[in-house]
Amino acid sequence: MTASTGSDKIRIGVFDSGFGGLTVLRALLPQIPTAEYFYLGDTARLPYGSKSQATVARYAVESAQLLESYGADYLVIACNTASALALDAIRAAAHVPVLGVIETGADSAAAASTTRDVLVLATQATVDSHAYARACATHGLRSIEKACPLLVPLIEEGWIDSPVTRQVLRIYLEQAQAEATSAGMALDTVLLGCTHYPLLRGLLRESLPKDMTILDSAESTAQRVRRQLRSLKSLPEGTTDTGDTNIPVCHFFATDSVDKFRTLGSRFLGRPIEQVELIDLGG
Amino acid sequence: MTASTGSDKIRIGVFDSGFGGLTVLRALLPQIPTAEYFYLGDTARLPYGSKSQATVARYAVESAQLLESYGADYLVIACNTASALALDAIRAAAHVPVLGVIETGADSAAAASTTRDVLVLATQATVDSHAYARACATHGLRSIEKACPLLVPLIEEGWIDSPVTRQVLRIYLEQAQAEATSAGMALDTVLLGCTHYPLLRGLLRESLPKDMTILDSAESTAQRVRRQLRSLKSLPEGTTDTGDTNIPVCHFFATDSVDKFRTLGSRFLGRPIEQVELIDLGG
Repeated sequence: MTASTGSDKIRIGVFDSGFGGLTVLRALLPQIPTAEYFYLGDTARLPYGSKSQATVARYAVESAQLLESYGADYLVIACNTASALALDAIRAAAHVPVLGVIETGADSAAAASTTRDVLVLATQATVDSHAYARACATHGLRSIEKACPLLVPLIEEGWIDSPVTRQVLRIYLEQAQAEATSAGMALDTVLLGCTHYPLLRGLLRESLPKDMTILDSAESTAQRVRRQLRSLKSLPEGTTDTGDTNIPVCHFFATDSVDKFRTLGSRFLGRPIEQVELIDLGG
Repeated sequence: MTASTGSDKIRIGVFDSGFGGLTVLRALLPQIPTAEYFYLGDTARLPYGSKSQATVARYAVESAQLLESYGADYLVIACNTASALALDAIRAAAHVPVLGVIETGADSAAAASTTRDVLVLATQATVDSHAYARACATHGLRSIEKACPLLVPLIEEGWIDSPVTRQVLRIYLEQAQAEATSAGMALDTVLLGCTHYPLLRGLLRESLPKDMTILDSAESTAQRVRRQLRSLKSLPEGTTDTGDTNIPVCHFFATDSVDKFRTLGSRFLGRPIEQVELIDLGG
């Protein structure tokens, strides 16, 4: 490939309320290594998952505008709650293409499910919005949406392998299964509708029947971004993106403690985060 | 007693990041029923307990200023995290007396403890600030400060009597006890350093040795407010405050969903909350 100069590079803004969206960035880097990335975690105001639609929309629009002000040509809303509650508001406020993670998650569920009955695990706000149920329905999928409010705190506490987390998961999954049974549904696919949940993939694998497929939207989102940028001619056909050994340039921004972002964020990104800039969104 | 007219009434502002401070308001009402109350829950930006000192201070100062703008003559910072991290900043910004809950909690621990060794359960931010350890030390008390980040989410999920919550509590208490043992301390008093925790009093009672005293700072804070207002002559000596059967006027403000505030808040206040005003603090 030809190395891109700074001015050629497409600038991709990735937004989340916190650290979970770094799993989406992680999937993007090998897909589009020629891009320059701007990641914003609105850590001063997280979690979004327990807040109202109006508040989440206000926060998400401010965050998207900040990324645009840094020159982002394309925005990925890597936060399920913001994608579920605020995608229309962000698109109305933005001047660049905006992609959320709900649609891409539903796409991958549609590709994976044989029974056409899908379980979506998500935050309370995402579940209340029924955005996943609607997105799944466009593919002819039925879905059970199960709110799991304790999983994010357990993950942030680092209790990834704890018996407590196992017990909480068991309770949530049993409640979801009971709901599915009474609705006559045969779940064969679990969609992780929160960017924190992939860190519980191991525990979920143990807790679920062997033939259940577990999906998260990070990978399908990254592929969709690549396809869209190609179709928009923003990504030159000539570049061979996958397998590039260059490390893309990433800029990190947070609205609360940059130290905490470096520490927790590195766990989600799967590689060290060196520099984080503290941003004031006025909130 | 002589009924106060509107203009005579002392106006007490009570501030918390969310709903927990309503347990402090609940203790204040029978102590000073002649006052008019303004309660603000900064629910759009909760929880404070996982955030940095700078962010908590900024949020708390904005909230205190809002209560002053509504005419509060006296401010009670009913949030342990804000009291621990931002009391100096709030006092510097305010034009009225400001009381936090850390000092009053330490006072009640000093009155209760025989061994002079106290366990403080609190949020991560409160523990990191060591505000309780300092306040306890001024009374000659030694303390173990134990961060319990999962308790607030468990309480807000309503899992008050759940085996999961019992197990989480057991883990936290065992870790604290191990720390005390290795420091040669004999804990006889547990101070609930977060206004959510009183809702777990029953479970704590079962999980702790019978002779351990469990304290929260709501009652001692209410008594301290009353004494201070008396000494400032803001509360007429003639009024017999305790046992008054009038229901004091309370105004409620929240920065996120007023419906959620009514529902969850009523649980903490112990009586129905009818009207809540949505406030925009620009965040």
